[in-house]
Amino acid sequence: TPELAERTALPGVATGLAVTGAGGDVLFIEASLADKETGATGLTLTGQLGDVMKESAQIALSYLRSRGAELELPVGDLAARGVHVHVPAGAVPKDGPSAGITMTTALASLLSGRPVRSDVAMTGEVSLTGRVLPIGGVKQKLLAAHRAGITTVLLPSRNGPDLDDVPAAVRGALTVHLVSDVREVLDLALEPAAFDPGRQPMVAA
Amino acid sequence: TPELAERTALPGVATGLAVTGAGGDVLFIEASLADKETGATGLTLTGQLGDVMKESAQIALSYLRSRGAELELPVGDLAARGVHVHVPAGAVPKDGPSAGITMTTALASLLSGRPVRSDVAMTGEVSLTGRVLPIGGVKQKLLAAHRAGITTVLLPSRNGPDLDDVPAAVRGALTVHLVSDVREVLDLALEPAAFDPGRQPMVAA
Amino acid sequence: TPELAERTALPGVATGLAVTGAGGDVLFIEASLADKETGATGLTLTGQLGDVMKESAQIALSYLRSRGAELELPVGDLAARGVHVHVPAGAVPKDGPSAGITMTTALASLLSGRPVRSDVAMTGEVSLTGRVLPIGGVKQKLLAAHRAGITTVLLPSRNGPDLDDVPAAVRGALTVHLVSDVREVLDLALEPAAFDPGRQPMVAA
Amino acid sequence: TPELAERTALPGVATGLAVTGAGGDVLFIEASLADKETGATGLTLTGQLGDVMKESAQIALSYLRSRGAELELPVGDLAARGVHVHVPAGAVPKDGPSAGITMTTALASLLSGRPVRSDVAMTGEVSLTGRVLPIGGVKQKLLAAHRAGITTVLLPSRNGPDLDDVPAAVRGALTVHLVSDVREVLDLALEPAAFDPGRQPMVAA
Amino acid sequence: TPELAERTALPGVATGLAVTGAGGDVLFIEASLADKETGATGLTLTGQLGDVMKESAQIALSYLRSRGAELELPVGDLAARGVHVHVPAGAVPKDGPSAGITMTTALASLLSGRPVRSDVAMTGEVSLTGRVLPIGGVKQKLLAAHRAGITTVLLPSRNGPDLDDVPAAVRGALTVHLVSDVREVLDLALEPAAFDPGRQPMVAA
Amino acid sequence: TPELAERTALPGVATGLAVTGAGGDVLFIEASLADKETGATGLTLTGQLGDVMKESAQIALSYLRSRGAELELPVGDLAARGVHVHVPAGAVPKDGPSAGITMTTALASLLSGRPVRSDVAMTGEVSLTGRVLPIGGVKQKLLAAHRAGITTVLLPSRNGPDLDDVPAAVRGALTVHLVSDVREVLDLALEPAAFDPGRQPMVAA
Ligand SMILES: [Ca+2]
Ligand SMILES: [Ca+2]
Ligand SMILES: [Ca+2]
Ligand SMILES: [Ca+2]
Ligand SMILES: [Ca+2]
Ligand SMILES: [Ca+2]
Ligand SMILES: [Ca+2]
Ligand SMILES: [Ca+2]
Ligand SMILES: [Ca+2]
Ligand SMILES: [Ca+2]
Ligand SMILES: [Ca+2]
Ligand SMILES: [Ca+2]
Repeated sequence: TPELAERTALPGVATGLAVTGAGGDVLFIEASLADKETGATGLTLTGQLGDVMKESAQIALSYLRSRGAELELPVGDLAARGVHVHVPAGAVPKDGPSAGITMTTALASLLSGRPVRSDVAMTGEVSLTGRVLPIGGVKQKLLAAHRAGITTVLLPSRNGPDLDDVPAAVRGALTVHLVSDVREVLDLALEPAAFDPGRQPMVAA
Repeated sequence: TPELAERTALPGVATGLAVTGAGGDVLFIEASLADKETGATGLTLTGQLGDVMKESAQIALSYLRSRGAELELPVGDLAARGVHVHVPAGAVPKDGPSAGITMTTALASLLSGRPVRSDVAMTGEVSLTGRVLPIGGVKQKLLAAHRAGITTVLLPSRNGPDLDDVPAAVRGALTVHLVSDVREVLDLALEPAAFDPGRQPMVAA
Repeated sequence: TPELAERTALPGVATGLAVTGAGGDVLFIEASLADKETGATGLTLTGQLGDVMKESAQIALSYLRSRGAELELPVGDLAARGVHVHVPAGAVPKDGPSAGITMTTALASLLSGRPVRSDVAMTGEVSLTGRVLPIGGVKQKLLAAHRAGITTVLLPSRNGPDLDDVPAAVRGALTVHLVSDVREVLDLALEPAAFDPGRQPMVAA
Repeated sequence: TPELAERTALPGVATGLAVTGAGGDVLFIEASLADKETGATGLTLTGQLGDVMKESAQIALSYLRSRGAELELPVGDLAARGVHVHVPAGAVPKDGPSAGITMTTALASLLSGRPVRSDVAMTGEVSLTGRVLPIGGVKQKLLAAHRAGITTVLLPSRNGPDLDDVPAAVRGALTVHLVSDVREVLDLALEPAAFDPGRQPMVAA
Repeated sequence: TPELAERTALPGVATGLAVTGAGGDVLFIEASLADKETGATGLTLTGQLGDVMKESAQIALSYLRSRGAELELPVGDLAARGVHVHVPAGAVPKDGPSAGITMTTALASLLSGRPVRSDVAMTGEVSLTGRVLPIGGVKQKLLAAHRAGITTVLLPSRNGPDLDDVPAAVRGALTVHLVSDVREVLDLALEPAAFDPGRQPMVAA
Repeated sequence: TPELAERTALPGVATGLAVTGAGGDVLFIEASLADKETGATGLTLTGQLGDVMKESAQIALSYLRSRGAELELPVGDLAARGVHVHVPAGAVPKDGPSAGITMTTALASLLSGRPVRSDVAMTGEVSLTGRVLPIGGVKQKLLAAHRAGITTVLLPSRNGPDLDDVPAAVRGALTVHLVSDVREVLDLALEPAAFDPGRQPMVAA
């Protein structure tokens, strides 16, 4: 949809799936890197995130700090540039570990300069070694993904059995990939790099 | 009005719109940059701001730290000069995400040295990528803007339908721009730069 | 009075006006700058100040950090010398925004080396751009000022109408200046510089 | 089992044993070191750990900081590289001192580049001098280890008498080592180093 | 008494007077400066001090940081050496502003290397400019001082009238000095410097 | 006993005495210094210590930072090496000031490389100047020391009268030293230095 395309047009934004009081919903994880010359450092988390979700962001960042070089990501960019992860809407409290792979994808997209595919949504806890761990609410999340115009969903392998609960019409309309390592997530979700706004341009200081 | 003109005379002050217990009201977002030689750094937030509103200020600042260079703003000024965002009146608690574009505008005004137009008020949540997200209280906010002498209001595109609730006399007296990206906000709200008090003069050290 | 003269003899002390449970009272805002060779930095606030009053001190300091150079104040002194603002009596909790201009005056006095006039007291919220905003308790504050021997009082312009409530005998005994910008406050309250204990003497290191 | 082998395939992951509301369970302690060029420093702890368990991680780290050189571990790597210890599942609160030796083993595995044996699980409080102190829940923990496919368990010497409570079939299927110093734990749990992903590769800066 | 002489034998310890649930009591304020080569910095406060008493210690330290040079104290020692102020007994909660001049005296004694006279006790709030402000409990404090063998007491000038409440036998046995500036306190309380353990010896680095 | 000998075999561990809900008990205070090349700094306290006990550790450390050089301790080691003080068992909350001299002894043992005598236990509050102040629970503590195989106990001088409450058989089996300065404690408790693991070996960097 145009909404999905606009929201994920630039590197650094990944589409997640959440369970809310009123069923499921898509949410966007936005990540930014401060320009080096602004002097910003550290990790800023906003969007009224609860303790568990804040820890997910730290795990995603540490995964990239320790394994990102193996993925050919320019992890040195993390040293001198402040990282900010935000989850709109700003006033809605959010919690839980299931945005782990979405946060990892948003950050990897930002570092690589490769946008996230606008037709892909994902849900899954991530461990510090990049394992994708199971989550809840598969049925509601797939209904919400379908409603929002998503055509491809990434799910933890151990959630495979939960697909039986999804109505056949929705299940048939979605391509579902079962994943067990976050590297599979990145391979499926990131577009090839066309341009690179995430990289810091050379600046005469 | 003279009040609006005086409050927004210098770069760094933008006029927002808020919902209060007694209807709507205008509020001024004030931003300052410490002179480099004072050694001040970091972000200071005052005005009895709640958690969500403090996060809005962090989002506004991160937006400029990561995208400001594309807007030709001198973001290097942020490195060595402490940023302070204040929202009078000092004793009145305030919260919510709807001052996001106003905070972004106040900071961009400060960095660019371009004052904010005194006849413009605005309301809208901002995302980390500069998207303008919808807010509540459109009717009360437009009544308050009109009462205060504002003639131009900037609203999120997705709040367009809420304009139906605004009395025709008020709606007719206001120019309303529906915006979806904060760059549109800056184009509409900032005056051309006449002088530049926000820039640090060269100092013999 | 001797008490007022003694308390404000040195630069860095300004006389404010407060509302207490038992009417009004004068209070002294004391500011100090650590000698550079002590290595102290940052802002220390004492006197059992509440959140709003602590924010007033931050606003006063940021005002001077961003606008002090225009006032010909040696703001570079703020870089390497810790600032301390204290409001005796130490055990009495205090709060509210109305000491804003008094704190700004105490700090400007300290930086300039110009003592505050001992016959002057003041009350008014200060904004980050130096606007003087209205406060409450004008009647009690003027009665207290008169009782303490003060002869000149500085009030926010927007509090002009409140002067009608002050008994004529007190009103007549006081010179009241209505001010709207903190620069007017400094012009009215600071004595010419006779000597300069606030400046750091040159030290052979 | 494949699950155990996959989870502990890389250096930095050790298998612990915990008591839960529903008996015992295995848990994985994951540790990572940030690549030096990311500029990350300090200790990050995630997994909804309680106060006592956070202190266990600090003790494990201090043990290696003070005694690691005697164990021929490259402790200098700790200086410039942020350490992260995570215990999935991310949303499950965990507490208590009995993961002390497991945390020490995960960190020593990471520093040495020697993976932890996938058939070994362990439980025991660690002191700052490396003593292994007794814990509770021996019976439930051994039942859980056996259920998960573990064949070797490391227990504190002072828990030896608790082995009488373990059903003979489970006791007979497990090799149990009683240990009193964490150096015995490391000798029994770490595989020989085959390759060394925990070491920072040389990078042209 | 021997107890008083032993406790105040070295520079850095001053005898204060407090009101407790069971009348009055003497207390000792102990101050130390870390040796420069230990790398310790900042201000450490111990003795279960309440908020107001912690602020008193900050005021005492800031007074010396800004005015100490005029008193010919080597305030540069404060830059590179951590300051610790402790008030035994360690488990007894203490609060209030009346130890202000005692804390200032302990710190000035430490910096100057001049011990505090063992027959002198004192009580008084101190302001940031060194003014001595009135306190409560004069009667109980003087009874306690006399009981403990103190012969000289320093009191705030504005507490002069409270001396009428002290029994004549106690009043007659004590020399009471009424003071209004902390410089008078230091002149009365500090012994001439015989040796100088508070100064850092030159060390070959 | 073997337990006592093993626990105190290395420098940095001292045996204390505590009162618990079930009488008295011995506890071990463990201290470590991080190897310099690990980059660790500051003071870490673990063992579920309460506020008063944490302050005791700060007092012990400040005593050594300010007086350690007079005791010929290599206090420069404190500058670049993180200090950790831990009190097992990790899950048992502990509080109170009576471990002050035990903490000082553990740290002095660590710095000097001299182990603490395994037959010695101690209890006593320490002040910032090294005075040993009285504590409670003398009877329960001596019973516990005797039960644990301790033969020498160090007590504050001012607790001398409490020895009357100790059963004659226990009193007769213990050598009790009454001490008033922590230097006496160190003289009685530390063994001569045989080897020096507490010193940092020279490392080719
Ligand atoms: Ca929580
Ligand atoms: Ca690596
Ligand atoms: Ca909130
Ligand atoms: Ca950029
Ligand atoms: Ca408040
Ligand atoms: Ca300026
Ligand atoms: Ca706890
Ligand atoms: Ca060592
Ligand atoms: Ca308090
Ligand atoms: Ca000075
Ligand atoms: Ca406590
Ligand atoms: Ca010394």
